[in-house]
Amino acid sequence: MTFNVTHTSGAARRGEITTPHGAAQTPAFMNVATQAAIKGGLSAADLETVGCQIALCNTYHLHLRPGEEIVRSAGGLHGFMNWSRPILTDSGGFQVFSLARLRKITEDGAAFNSHIDGHRVFMSPEDSVSIQYALGADIAMAFDECVGLPAPYDYVKSSCDRTFRWLERCKLELERLDGGAGKTVLFGINQGATYHDLRRENMLKIAELDLPGYAIGGLAVGESHEEMYETLDELLPVMPSDKPRYLMGVGTPDNIIEAVSRGVDMFDCVLPARNGRHGKFYTSSGTINIKNEKYAADFTPIDERCECPVCSNYSKAYIRHLFKAEEILALRFAVTHNLWYFNHLMSDIRSAIERGEFEAFKKSRSE
Amino acid sequence: MTFNVTHTSGAARRGEITTPHGAAQTPAFMNVATQAAIKGGLSAADLETVGCQIALCNTYHLHLRPGEEIVRSAGGLHGFMNWSRPILTDSGGFQVFSLARLRKITEDGAAFNSHIDGHRVFMSPEDSVSIQYALGADIAMAFDECVGLPAPYDYVKSSCDRTFRWLERCKLELERLDGGAGKTVLFGINQGATYHDLRRENMLKIAELDLPGYAIGGLAVGESHEEMYETLDELLPVMPSDKPRYLMGVGTPDNIIEAVSRGVDMFDCVLPARNGRHGKFYTSSGTINIKNEKYAADFTPIDERCECPVCSNYSKAYIRHLFKAEEILALRFAVTHNLWYFNHLMSDIRSAIERGEFEAFKKSRSE
Repeated sequence: MTFNVTHTSGAARRGEITTPHGAAQTPAFMNVATQAAIKGGLSAADLETVGCQIALCNTYHLHLRPGEEIVRSAGGLHGFMNWSRPILTDSGGFQVFSLARLRKITEDGAAFNSHIDGHRVFMSPEDSVSIQYALGADIAMAFDECVGLPAPYDYVKSSCDRTFRWLERCKLELERLDGGAGKTVLFGINQGATYHDLRRENMLKIAELDLPGYAIGGLAVGESHEEMYETLDELLPVMPSDKPRYLMGVGTPDNIIEAVSRGVDMFDCVLPARNGRHGKFYTSSGTINIKNEKYAADFTPIDERCECPVCSNYSKAYIRHLFKAEEILALRFAVTHNLWYFNHLMSDIRSAIERGEFEAFKKSRSE
Repeated sequence: MTFNVTHTSGAARRGEITTPHGAAQTPAFMNVATQAAIKGGLSAADLETVGCQIALCNTYHLHLRPGEEIVRSAGGLHGFMNWSRPILTDSGGFQVFSLARLRKITEDGAAFNSHIDGHRVFMSPEDSVSIQYALGADIAMAFDECVGLPAPYDYVKSSCDRTFRWLERCKLELERLDGGAGKTVLFGINQGATYHDLRRENMLKIAELDLPGYAIGGLAVGESHEEMYETLDELLPVMPSDKPRYLMGVGTPDNIIEAVSRGVDMFDCVLPARNGRHGKFYTSSGTINIKNEKYAADFTPIDERCECPVCSNYSKAYIRHLFKAEEILALRFAVTHNLWYFNHLMSDIRSAIERGEFEAFKKSRSE
């Protein structure tokens, strides 16, 4: 994997990541395909249509079902889901924290009960990397503990130390598996809750491992936007400038623009798909809820300025009808439009950085 | 509307229907879009991809939601759902019988409670035609009473007589609305349960009205296949040979082939979509249930001989995973494949008739 910054505009960066499955332009928004499928009924071909550059799949889910050996036999996730562009896999750490039951964290790793059938599972840092390697990820993420907020300082500190030891084990395991071939690379994840000194200390430590990229984890888990931005203000200056910076699980268009303005390069979030499934559509003039009665006889598209396959062909009235009639085509249209919106927002962001006008772009959006 | 038979092979007919929205080749299988949407999340564009020639929408559902005035304002169903090919609308008679509660049939029409919110609705033959006209159907169906089986002879006889009077009223109402413009045409529906004398008598009577097409209703509602075929054997000889013959709600590939061999031209059925949603896929070597454990690591397509977008790009293992993981993409793939299968079966049937080899085709299928 390589990463090059080609333009800057203030602290905002315009770059390119290259992987064994092609390049991605940054800042990039990764589209979430948790179980090797996109919620709302989109296929991998649809993901290309909406402009997705990198698909994000989840180690926790795929390990439980269908199991990484089936995916490996299918030629990895790329073959399994028929997606030819880059794939990043989450390590499972976040799902152990958010989904699994009766979890027990030890130095070895995490034991937990499957959220599907309750069976006991143990996952070590080595297991996580080995699963991600079997899945054929271009970018694997370090296995980390994502601490819920608020959390006591001492617990966060000892958790960060353990997650750092896990990161060293992840790195060793990937070196053992990949042997320097570069089929899969590992990103480190910064933790530290909202304690700025722990965040900075942890970031400086993981930066010494000289990994190909660094993520900020444990944000967008309930803290305020201001707390998130303050943490970014503390962290970005100590993140390696020659490596991609990935803000995990973020976020709204505003969150993304604020983070880009601070120098973040990569994002992922379930928001466009989850909100879409509830009838919330992102448009160039704000969000709308299509279930609103006022759209019942509105024969204009969701967004006159949008060129997505939904806005090009269907009216608000039709899409509202699909939601009211509980047709799953409604979900597909919503996710298609919203992913298109987020991916094209990133394209607008990249153009603004190329022109050296990112601050003006950011200002124009907040008016 | 015009209809021409271009080839015959035994009693099987190869023909063409032309409508204001283009031609359809017969024998044809209409694809069901009940609420102006195809179950499983397919869009109108997808319907074209799977080879659908005529979409079938339901008056009962669309009258209740979103209401025909909204559809009319959208430019009819064609504009509303963005479908440019022919549309046939069911009259609502079957849904009053199968879905509505507390129905009361009188000479005037049918009163019933909406299955959605229970509100009382009254629909006369004139209402049904007027709604179908507002929906912009190319082909409207007569408003009929579909009698549940088994039913007493006397009830069926008096019901047939009333449905005939309703048919005359439907015809008058469409003439009033359409004024001979031919935007919408009306098909009559034969009823008579499994009483052959009533069926024949009714068919002879409705044939005298010289309508552009005739349907056989009230079959595939629980009777055996043999009873259905016997009824067809009785009816087909007395159906006008210069008009399309439509067997409503049928059926399996075998049902369709048996009916074509007796001279039926048009079909519709929810089977490919409904079965698909339960994981049942039609293939050139029979049906399979993709949820079966034996497909967990089967990386071949559903049907090696199928060229549909699903079989061209995805494996059984992936599709099984989607079903097990409850991803709605599973439903879309299943409906896409099964509708493709049915539409291409019809294409094979038409080719066999053109070659004058329909009996050989039928025999080869049953081996």
